[in-house]
Amino acid sequence: MSSFNFTIDAESSETWARAGTIQTPHGTIETPIFMPVGTQATVKSVSPEELHGVGAQIILANTYHLMLRPGSALIDSFGGLHSFMNWQGPILTDSGGFQVWSLAHNRKLNEDGVVFKSHLDGSSHALTPERVMQIEAELGADIVLPLDICAPYPSNPTEARKAMEWTHRWEERALVEKEKLRPEQTLFGIVQGAFEADLRAQSAQVIGNMPFQGLSIGGLSVGEPKEQMWEMLKHVTPELPRDKPRHLLGVGSPEDLVIGVGLGMDMFDCVLPTRVARHGGLFTRDGRVSIKGARFRTAHGPIEEGCDCYTCQHYSAAYVCHLARAEEQLYYRLGSIHNIRFMLRLAKELRESIINGTYPTFRETFLARYVPASE
Amino acid sequence: MSSFNFTIDAESSETWARAGTIQTPHGTIETPIFMPVGTQATVKSVSPEELHGVGAQIILANTYHLMLRPGSALIDSFGGLHSFMNWQGPILTDSGGFQVWSLAHNRKLNEDGVVFKSHLDGSSHALTPERVMQIEAELGADIVLPLDICAPYPSNPTEARKAMEWTHRWEERALVEKEKLRPEQTLFGIVQGAFEADLRAQSAQVIGNMPFQGLSIGGLSVGEPKEQMWEMLKHVTPELPRDKPRHLLGVGSPEDLVIGVGLGMDMFDCVLPTRVARHGGLFTRDGRVSIKGARFRTAHGPIEEGCDCYTCQHYSAAYVCHLARAEEQLYYRLGSIHNIRFMLRLAKELRESIINGTYPTFRETFLARYVPASE
Ligand SMILES: [Zn+2]
Ligand SMILES: [Zn+2]
Repeated sequence: MSSFNFTIDAESSETWARAGTIQTPHGTIETPIFMPVGTQATVKSVSPEELHGVGAQIILANTYHLMLRPGSALIDSFGGLHSFMNWQGPILTDSGGFQVWSLAHNRKLNEDGVVFKSHLDGSSHALTPERVMQIEAELGADIVLPLDICAPYPSNPTEARKAMEWTHRWEERALVEKEKLRPEQTLFGIVQGAFEADLRAQSAQVIGNMPFQGLSIGGLSVGEPKEQMWEMLKHVTPELPRDKPRHLLGVGSPEDLVIGVGLGMDMFDCVLPTRVARHGGLFTRDGRVSIKGARFRTAHGPIEEGCDCYTCQHYSAAYVCHLARAEEQLYYRLGSIHNIRFMLRLAKELRESIINGTYPTFRETFLARYVPASE
Repeated sequence: MSSFNFTIDAESSETWARAGTIQTPHGTIETPIFMPVGTQATVKSVSPEELHGVGAQIILANTYHLMLRPGSALIDSFGGLHSFMNWQGPILTDSGGFQVWSLAHNRKLNEDGVVFKSHLDGSSHALTPERVMQIEAELGADIVLPLDICAPYPSNPTEARKAMEWTHRWEERALVEKEKLRPEQTLFGIVQGAFEADLRAQSAQVIGNMPFQGLSIGGLSVGEPKEQMWEMLKHVTPELPRDKPRHLLGVGSPEDLVIGVGLGMDMFDCVLPTRVARHGGLFTRDGRVSIKGARFRTAHGPIEEGCDCYTCQHYSAAYVCHLARAEEQLYYRLGSIHNIRFMLRLAKELRESIINGTYPTFRETFLARYVPASE
């Protein structure tokens, strides 16, 4: 029923990296891929045309935010997210689970689902695995995720196991409901298990064996040291089916992309490129720089030599610096375009290195030069 | 020395309206024209390509803001404003006079010039008629204005006369200095005289007889009732030379454009379209509407039927309403594009009505339908 398809174009012999192609009803995605996040049906400060311009192949939108405002029924009345926000490429909606756990108030969890109060106006809402599928059917994304429980960090092994098993039961219910509603949507499973190696492996086996068409790894990048995140992936990836795309939820930074690919991840999403841009942080191959810094005040060249983004092709770093210091709206757009393009160019280069068999060298070279920012 | 030229294409027989063509080194302007304001070398939230898209023919930038940040010498080192901000069309810079009187602190006025403290950081600055010409030479706009004194509102006749005569002396000095620096720039004179009919007529005669290539009417729209502004123009326009373009400084709203044209004005500039857009106010032929209002929440059509702007061509009013309610950056852009396009379409229709001899009817029809907002 689904026109979703995933093929592997190349695999790295020394790592778990692979290059693939995903077919969706709204177009093709070449992996590894970075997905810009359009939380409220807009990638902050960037237009759909500009997303095409930076090479975006798929964007992510947040079910939690959209169900609260403007509401999924309203979006459905416009024919879904694609036409509502004028983005005709592929879209992935998350399940809202993460936001219920990180943003909402007065959460009450039971076997059926979760009741919570909106962070916007305190209004009460209930989500069940079935209700989330209904909302995501109304939103109409190409790829949808099931409601999950993100264990707090840190959790003890008992809590972590309980949240994981609960999530697994919810995911089975989501599979059933989704087939009733919009079988043409592609449902990814979510792997949980907190920071317990055995739980991570178990979750990957269980979810990997369910009839999901892709796998999202959830519950990572929630405050733990980076090393712990990578350690978990080492227990997850070997248990996952080879022929399904793997999505590392909510990750990440440029260095995360480079490392995550080697650990078998195909898809990444994160608000980081637009969020740090808003605060003046722009990506370069040497690391993140602050565009408001004195060295850019008189810089005639672009933010980064060789960058092919609209910003770098049309404006000096000095002009971008001026806009940032003056807190002009155009700055947020120009900075976001540069950062998103940086991520997508990086994903493209990672893909090429995998196809050329040079990924390990690419990774080494990139990480030797790129100075990570401390978040 | 200047490639500036103004020709009158048509005149309204029943009013003072006229349609003209201005040639500048950076292109042609068809009048009547609305000039979007790019205070800090950017029209808030709109890119140069989008300005072209809405039909902008000339933009205005603020000398006061740019001299303070990033500084005119810096902009000069980039070859001037056009290349610094990547706008290759005509630019007009004001003199900074109005902002010195409305924004700066601790003003001290003397015959030579004015000393003040920056509203940004309290730093001390001095402006003289000559210094303003030097700064505007560095900014490199096509049309520049001389330093003037904007009498406070209300002023008594003695204060008003003193400020006007002082301004006239400064304008003579500006004429001399400008020829020394960049004779290819076009210097407009500024007519002052507060709200004294005799002073306005006198200022129009004096400045109209000086070798300026255009006339800006300053000191209006400073808090007075609209009727008082129009009354002043009735004393100014008959005294002005027919063959020079007339610029109504800092005006205005859609209805101001329609009325001002009939009183002989050719050029208008105002931050209003972008400022009110930021607060949710969007222009339609019926008046200003609040896009956040309930009636737009589910509106499938555009903000205004028949609008040819990018926003109305690509997005439903409901989506724009959603972005505005969610305070998304993209909203400010989409709203500003709609409003600026509204002003430029209005200017174009005014021009066509003058050429067709139907301006009085156009004015009557427009004002009968358009409900002005109270500022
Ligand atoms: Zn760039
Ligand atoms: Zn419009």
